[in-house]
Amino acid sequence: MEEFVEKNCDAFDVTPVRFIKETDTLLILDQTKLPGEEVYIEMETKEDVWDAIYQLKVRGAPAIGVAAAYGLYVVGRNLAREFERELMIQKLAERQEDLLLVDRFMERLQRAADYLVSARPTAVNLSWALNRMMKAAKSFFVQAEIDAEWAQVTGRMDEQQQVEEESKLTLVFACCQHLLNEAENIRIDDELACRAMGEYGLGLLKPGMGILTHCNAGTIATAKYGTCLAPIHLGQQQGYDFHVFADETRPLLQGARLTAWELKRAGVDVTLICDNMASIVMKKGWIDAVVVGCDRMAANGDGANKIGTSGVAILAKEYGIPFYMFVPTSTIDLGTATGDDIVIEERKGEEIYQMWYERDMAPSGVKTYNPAFDVTDHSYITAVITEKGIVRPPYDANLKKLFEK
Amino acid sequence: MEEFVEKNCDAFDVTPVRFIKETDTLLILDQTKLPGEEVYIEMETKEDVWDAIYQLKVRGAPAIGVAAAYGLYVVGRNLAREFERELMIQKLAERQEDLLLVDRFMERLQRAADYLVSARPTAVNLSWALNRMMKAAKSFFVQAEIDAEWAQVTGRMDEQQQVEEESKLTLVFACCQHLLNEAENIRIDDELACRAMGEYGLGLLKPGMGILTHCNAGTIATAKYGTCLAPIHLGQQQGYDFHVFADETRPLLQGARLTAWELKRAGVDVTLICDNMASIVMKKGWIDAVVVGCDRMAANGDGANKIGTSGVAILAKEYGIPFYMFVPTSTIDLGTATGDDIVIEERKGEEIYQMWYERDMAPSGVKTYNPAFDVTDHSYITAVITEKGIVRPPYDANLKKLFEK
Repeated sequence: MEEFVEKNCDAFDVTPVRFIKETDTLLILDQTKLPGEEVYIEMETKEDVWDAIYQLKVRGAPAIGVAAAYGLYVVGRNLAREFERELMIQKLAERQEDLLLVDRFMERLQRAADYLVSARPTAVNLSWALNRMMKAAKSFFVQAEIDAEWAQVTGRMDEQQQVEEESKLTLVFACCQHLLNEAENIRIDDELACRAMGEYGLGLLKPGMGILTHCNAGTIATAKYGTCLAPIHLGQQQGYDFHVFADETRPLLQGARLTAWELKRAGVDVTLICDNMASIVMKKGWIDAVVVGCDRMAANGDGANKIGTSGVAILAKEYGIPFYMFVPTSTIDLGTATGDDIVIEERKGEEIYQMWYERDMAPSGVKTYNPAFDVTDHSYITAVITEKGIVRPPYDANLKKLFEK
Repeated sequence: MEEFVEKNCDAFDVTPVRFIKETDTLLILDQTKLPGEEVYIEMETKEDVWDAIYQLKVRGAPAIGVAAAYGLYVVGRNLAREFERELMIQKLAERQEDLLLVDRFMERLQRAADYLVSARPTAVNLSWALNRMMKAAKSFFVQAEIDAEWAQVTGRMDEQQQVEEESKLTLVFACCQHLLNEAENIRIDDELACRAMGEYGLGLLKPGMGILTHCNAGTIATAKYGTCLAPIHLGQQQGYDFHVFADETRPLLQGARLTAWELKRAGVDVTLICDNMASIVMKKGWIDAVVVGCDRMAANGDGANKIGTSGVAILAKEYGIPFYMFVPTSTIDLGTATGDDIVIEERKGEEIYQMWYERDMAPSGVKTYNPAFDVTDHSYITAVITEKGIVRPPYDANLKKLFEK
């Protein structure tokens, strides 16, 4: 890996979720160990996957979806192998009960999906990806039934053959393959969406520009490329020589731990600053554009994102710097009228004065306010970049048009 | 101490520098131990004082000045005691050389003053306070000489008596007393200036207001009361029930470690937030005024203060919240035309990703930018509060008038 960084070629190609087909292995980059260690951990059970999501080893809405999708494949594969053993035991015992393989497979797969959702119940991409996987499994068996009926009608299969447990096991294994394909599709869809956002975004930027970003909406938060970091990665491949400033992003330091790491690793010229230094770097004329991600955008273009984003947007407006928000269409919620309707998650105050530190950095029992997100008013957003194109104000009209396309 | 907090009375009465007359003891509050421990350390030698200043055990320009002034008294007192021993030995040996007590006293005092300045050579208050102390010593001996001559003229003292080493030693001890008085004056002058700023500031605020502050310009940064925290302490005594929000102030966390501690200890309702949360608390309507200190103000009203101050000022303007800068006249530099002429100290990047943390919070070798201050444009400052009164725009004309008074 290290040699990629030195050669500065395709070095952004670190992915938060990796599936190795040759060995049938699901790997997850443990982001809690970054930037100190770059460790991939193998996901062998549903508990491994739950844990990785719950403990934020994998984070970023799209990346969580991809991890869970592959995770459900691993669950299915393990079930199929378990059934294979059962069948072998039955054969040795010379019994011939109906093992109800397909029904049990689907039931236990659904249970695993429900279990995985519980790791981060509010993450929309998690339930969305798992629903898509379950639908794929169901439609696979529906199709298999149709095929089997058709085979009987056409006389290519007799009834006896159909009910044989062995052929059912074959079907379960085939379904697992189908699940793996679906997980691949989820990953590829996200990668394509990010790439498209990257290309639209790059069209707004010029070589040599200074770019400020907040938090981490990068390649390790998605299948690949990232949302707001996608144009930076693509620009890096094309020799744009951006100068990126990464806000450290208190309290959880995603900017310092993840963005600075991801961009430095990709050979991008990145400078780490504290959040409160955004004003001085803008005043110095070092910033030509601000790029940020989005967690949820309302119909009027108000966008919720990592705490501090709205402050950066106001500074950008004051200094006359364009402020670009990267928002996959899946993140735009036309059912939410304005940012006032977005509920902001509040987290425990210990994150501010205890986490990361060797000792308490505030008097014990101090009152805190620790919102995880804030809402950037649409009036501060120069353009919204989606995978379907760039949206400009007025957002209430133009976001609607995007979905009508 | 703890009971003050509970009783909520005069609890702000913690001082960074304490001189106990009864025991002739100089104590300094070790601010590097805050908020975990409230430890006063005794200053017995010039090395103790140098160390306390260098290691930021005492910080805040006025507090450093006060500490150094008392420190020079301690140096003088130690010298006087040393001379007393010398004289005793001479007496025992029945010698009668001229010990040149006064000359040696002044020479070694000056050397100690130069040494103390080297602890933080750029801190204006440090050299200012030590110069004032040296002047006091010099003028004491000049006056003593005049008095002695007058005594001869009036026949109240013969020449022999004058040159006696013992009377010289008495003079040296008397000079030490004079130095102690001067240190007290320096402390009291600062306390009065802070109290005046507090009263002017309080006139701008109303009971129950929400107030945001950045960094620590509090009682522990001055002789007492603080600059921008003075109105909060005075308001607390008068039952104003302010709701204060303290920016944690990265990278050195003066807001979390010092302001939150100082205000909580004084019984003030204080809420700790990360710097990037200033925008959301303003948007929520929780902030009615911003109060900050100042490290140097140019003739046009541009004010350099702790990094991040300019960003808070821009947010305050955007949300229509008054922004008050507390600036003792000693901090106003009419010789500096605008903020562009103020050189901003850059500090090492490790402060951002290493200090306080158990492990590096950014990839090793990452580029950083770590300015200690930024300049707030005068156009964002609603009023400048000095010990001589409140100054409103246009600052170029009105700051000049302040000095003409």
